[in-house]
Amino acid sequence: MTHNSSSSRPLILICNDDGIDALGILSLAAGLDGLGEIVVVAPVLEQSAVGHSITIRDPVRARSWPFRVPSGAVSAFSVSGTPADCVKLAIDKLLPRIPDIVVSGINQGPNAAVNVIYSGTVSAATEAAILGIPAMAISYCRWRGGDFEGSATIARLIVTQILAHGLPHGVLLNVNVPDLSIEDIRGISVTRQAKSKWEESFIERMDPFDQPYYWLSGTFVNMDSGKNTDLEAIENGFVSVTPIQHDLTAHDAVEALEKWNLGRTEFERADPRTKAVKS
Amino acid sequence: MTHNSSSSRPLILICNDDGIDALGILSLAAGLDGLGEIVVVAPVLEQSAVGHSITIRDPVRARSWPFRVPSGAVSAFSVSGTPADCVKLAIDKLLPRIPDIVVSGINQGPNAAVNVIYSGTVSAATEAAILGIPAMAISYCRWRGGDFEGSATIARLIVTQILAHGLPHGVLLNVNVPDLSIEDIRGISVTRQAKSKWEESFIERMDPFDQPYYWLSGTFVNMDSGKNTDLEAIENGFVSVTPIQHDLTAHDAVEALEKWNLGRTEFERADPRTKAVKS
Repeated sequence: MTHNSSSSRPLILICNDDGIDALGILSLAAGLDGLGEIVVVAPVLEQSAVGHSITIRDPVRARSWPFRVPSGAVSAFSVSGTPADCVKLAIDKLLPRIPDIVVSGINQGPNAAVNVIYSGTVSAATEAAILGIPAMAISYCRWRGGDFEGSATIARLIVTQILAHGLPHGVLLNVNVPDLSIEDIRGISVTRQAKSKWEESFIERMDPFDQPYYWLSGTFVNMDSGKNTDLEAIENGFVSVTPIQHDLTAHDAVEALEKWNLGRTEFERADPRTKAVKS
Repeated sequence: MTHNSSSSRPLILICNDDGIDALGILSLAAGLDGLGEIVVVAPVLEQSAVGHSITIRDPVRARSWPFRVPSGAVSAFSVSGTPADCVKLAIDKLLPRIPDIVVSGINQGPNAAVNVIYSGTVSAATEAAILGIPAMAISYCRWRGGDFEGSATIARLIVTQILAHGLPHGVLLNVNVPDLSIEDIRGISVTRQAKSKWEESFIERMDPFDQPYYWLSGTFVNMDSGKNTDLEAIENGFVSVTPIQHDLTAHDAVEALEKWNLGRTEFERADPRTKAVKS
């Protein structure tokens, strides 16, 4: 596989985590139709909440998949893996060259606040960002059904802007579209992830053999009363656009930890096991 | 299930991603023996590279598991899920109260630089950090075999320090121990994640039916020539201790994006589809 940049049309890789047959990815591809050469590479099975999972203990397979946008058929592959697998395999094996942008979605359901870390949709875009490829994840803030057309319109608008402006290296945009008709959306806000958590309350059931099993359930808690959060924007009827990066270092905490004085001398003294290991 | 803090001994939850029967988790529990009340909740099957995956489409089960540390038997449960599932289920259903610390590992193989985002080991500690519980992930920088005892000694030292000092809310420590005997380890360094990426080169094979399948493979590229990275510390024979948080917002990029002027007016003008949707 050779990578070249001879084509003047942008190469747009489309992925998702709801699976290649989801309505959201079909709407996304339709929404981006005409902006460049589209290739779709997406999981054959739904991969919601897989986070940044990659498949390392099993091989993955890719198969051609019939996929149409309004202007005609586009190249598409279903992959027996996660969203991150899809982007890795696409770039190494399936695409004619490095894509100009990777767009993931349209997810059925929001990916905001702490939920970003569980999101397969975002992980596909993160894979691209790590490689320095501009990327966007887009989610429609409705858990079932609804009409993806408004989100597709927003996708087209923001992808056009990304292709025009570029993005800082390593940064992707995480876009959440409120569950409103396009005429009721109040605008687009640049936001940050709201501080939040889940308070778990697993649902316990008994199987026919009297053994318990548990369904994940819980209450989402917004712990953020500050301004410019993704949750605030969505609640107020705005599209939230959060720039996301993947350096997890808590830079602010480094100084405090350095005061712990974890040097060689201290750890020799701290634990008699050290001596035991030596003897 | 009621949570109370009546016990004076710290409650230590131990998890991992290599599975409850892995040598690393046995060594970790032995290394922490005596520091508090230990409960082990870990996946029944290996979960490497699951990233921050959670199980939402299937129920999970927990079963008692025989687990011994030098001072005797401890409470332990195997869980049919991911490391993040283990911590969620433990806190909601399996533990007598909120743990004082969550320790994940000892992973067989490093979890440094960009690989942190794929790490199930780190994800267990992240779950705790989100809930404001001090947490640590620890990995032994050797892919197979070796002796976990040095890493267990380091685990005990750092857990003692965390219990004494606490950690900032939302921050966990990601610890990587070089593949050296304890007497050859040069010390402990507070570090940051090195900027890095993988250059994928999937291995393509043909099945007996002449269909291709792909094994993930690639070359790790350290793109960071700066100081105080986790990779640098490990290469130089130091234990790396990187504080990790889970706010992925690229705060530096917000200002640039605000200049894009993604306001309501612009998106009404930008795309004729908006009108089409309205009509």
